[in-house]
Amino acid sequence: MLDQTIKVELSTTKKQKPNADQLQFGKIFTDHMFIMDYTEGKGWHDPRIVPYQPITLDPSSVVFHYGQTVFEGLKAYVTKEGKVQLFRPEKNMERLNQSNDRMVIPKIDEQFALKALKQLVSIDKDWIPTAEGTSLYIRPFIIATQPFLGVAPSSQYKFMIIMSPVGAYYKEGLNPVKILVENEYVRTVKGGTGTAKTGGNYAASLKAQEISSQKGYSQVLWLDGIEHKYVEEVGSMNIFFKIDGKVVTPELSGSILPGITRDSIIQLLKYWNIPVEERKISIEEIYEAYDKGLLEEAFGTGTAAVISPVGELLWKDRKIVLNNGETGPLSKKLYDTLTGIQYGTVEDPFGWIVTVE
Amino acid sequence: MLDQTIKVELSTTKKQKPNADQLQFGKIFTDHMFIMDYTEGKGWHDPRIVPYQPITLDPSSVVFHYGQTVFEGLKAYVTKEGKVQLFRPEKNMERLNQSNDRMVIPKIDEQFALKALKQLVSIDKDWIPTAEGTSLYIRPFIIATQPFLGVAPSSQYKFMIIMSPVGAYYKEGLNPVKILVENEYVRTVKGGTGTAKTGGNYAASLKAQEISSQKGYSQVLWLDGIEHKYVEEVGSMNIFFKIDGKVVTPELSGSILPGITRDSIIQLLKYWNIPVEERKISIEEIYEAYDKGLLEEAFGTGTAAVISPVGELLWKDRKIVLNNGETGPLSKKLYDTLTGIQYGTVEDPFGWIVTVE
Ligand SMILES: Cc1ncc(COP(=O)(O)O)c(C=O)c1O
Ligand SMILES: Cc1ncc(COP(=O)(O)O)c(C=O)c1O
Repeated sequence: MLDQTIKVELSTTKKQKPNADQLQFGKIFTDHMFIMDYTEGKGWHDPRIVPYQPITLDPSSVVFHYGQTVFEGLKAYVTKEGKVQLFRPEKNMERLNQSNDRMVIPKIDEQFALKALKQLVSIDKDWIPTAEGTSLYIRPFIIATQPFLGVAPSSQYKFMIIMSPVGAYYKEGLNPVKILVENEYVRTVKGGTGTAKTGGNYAASLKAQEISSQKGYSQVLWLDGIEHKYVEEVGSMNIFFKIDGKVVTPELSGSILPGITRDSIIQLLKYWNIPVEERKISIEEIYEAYDKGLLEEAFGTGTAAVISPVGELLWKDRKIVLNNGETGPLSKKLYDTLTGIQYGTVEDPFGWIVTVE
Repeated sequence: MLDQTIKVELSTTKKQKPNADQLQFGKIFTDHMFIMDYTEGKGWHDPRIVPYQPITLDPSSVVFHYGQTVFEGLKAYVTKEGKVQLFRPEKNMERLNQSNDRMVIPKIDEQFALKALKQLVSIDKDWIPTAEGTSLYIRPFIIATQPFLGVAPSSQYKFMIIMSPVGAYYKEGLNPVKILVENEYVRTVKGGTGTAKTGGNYAASLKAQEISSQKGYSQVLWLDGIEHKYVEEVGSMNIFFKIDGKVVTPELSGSILPGITRDSIIQLLKYWNIPVEERKISIEEIYEAYDKGLLEEAFGTGTAAVISPVGELLWKDRKIVLNNGETGPLSKKLYDTLTGIQYGTVEDPFGWIVTVE
């Protein structure tokens, strides 16, 4: 597949690009998109870059009924010198295939998909905003398109990549968030689909998210679905705690998403010789550490925010304020380093950056 | 909403109807479909019956990424006298709204939706096959259509009803199925979305289903996601066991779908004075009952098959054959009675039948 050429149909009219202050996550899309089709027996075929446009599907398509779908999320950054950079994009393609495996969707050729992604970014590179902290969000996804109401893996799919220019996540420096520890609703459980990036996990989270925002909390911290005891992850972020000088994060136990930011942070911490542990962490342990004055910092990690410091936690009726509701020094240092690597202002000792020609 | 008229645009060309022996579940659709749109602030609007046709959506539509979708399934039957009958359709609309609540989708007006459904069935009534055991499968569903990549409830939706003529589930009498008791994968867990009819639950089931069919089993019996101990339900059916003269079925504990066939069977059994219990049932209890010679019958229940007798169970490496792999007398009696009511050959003492004019 790797040698296949991607047919390109350029858009004859160009959409107007938004001003830097009009950028909203995931609402405006670039001039082009990538599509390729899968048909049983034929495999993935007809890779093409075409003008961004609606897609037409039969109302009986599997995706509308049985949620057979996976997705990824990554960003393209432009450096001061005008170079276009991606951050560990091969990891996204690898994870997409892991999600495919869980959701019984045919694997893609990861290298080919990365080639297509780069070509698309290159064609729409004028869409990458240049103001500080802005970037181009890239959304590869696969949907099941067979027109058939049986509960069975689809025999047809579409793999698509769409892109949206996004503003700076933090307008005035890192902004700690208030997080509610969810005790009733569950996102997923071991043996379920939590390790995959698939629609149903996010649909399942909407109800708890709605209740928490009514209470004034911006995110939900999920506990394990079995005992409601161990910390799992936040909305669309993994979670880290700094306790008594050591950094801890939940292990990849089979129900949380293996975040690429999470992995990068673990590598960075090790590189800095800061002790870091991946293990089970009960919510009780966090509260005990707080009571003993040992809970120094907590932060979420993910592609969108990179680092999201936690300013407050509410578990049942116990509210705790972390680090006076301010961003801790480790959160700040991790944020500066990771974004520095992404925007090319900090050296990349790990070979994480992939340049787009 | 109830008084709103439904705009009708009839199809100018009629598709050819399949022969009775060509009927395949969910592959061929009738000439028309129902659509209505939801927009935040405006509510559900523009209800219309139009020729069956593809729908066009932005690739960033919420349903493609975050699986915010719900559905229902019911059937229309034609009696020997040519009357068109529905079976407890108000229950499907009620359950659709329960699913909506869990998935943070705006409620529909149940009576209006039922009116729309009846009008659609009436327009396409020539599509209801008349051969024994055949029917018209009706699929109401809602998809989230806002073009926005944020993980949040969509501000736009489409409610649609499509219909497919389906063949007899059993060509030559009730046919017992072989079922694998799933020990590793989980469909959903308490606090999750198991009580809702939403895409993600079905997507989550595909992997286990694939493995079980490779082993020669046609369905998976799910155990609870917490202890892998209690029986929950089968693929798209609830499950009943007859043990020592008593009928037992898992209680609605917050992780299984409240089946309408399940409810009807419980009512029928009570009407017949056959003892029936809704409670926790461990898979061990089933195997112990078998060892003592007390496991008389087991059967799945759902709209598609009505009753699906279980001929064999495999749990870990223990295979048990029930009732010599044959259909038991209670399964048969329930099947005959329920289908009799549905096709109008048996009296309906419960007021379950709704006639379409
Ligand atoms: C559920 C969930 N957890 C964690 C993450 C963080 O993953 P990554 O660091 O790869 O963006 C995401 C976001 O993509 C997510 O959706
Ligand atoms: C998961 C699941 N359980 C049970 C059922 C049976 O429900 P009903 O009897 O309402 O068809 C279905 C089918 O609709 C289902 O999808």
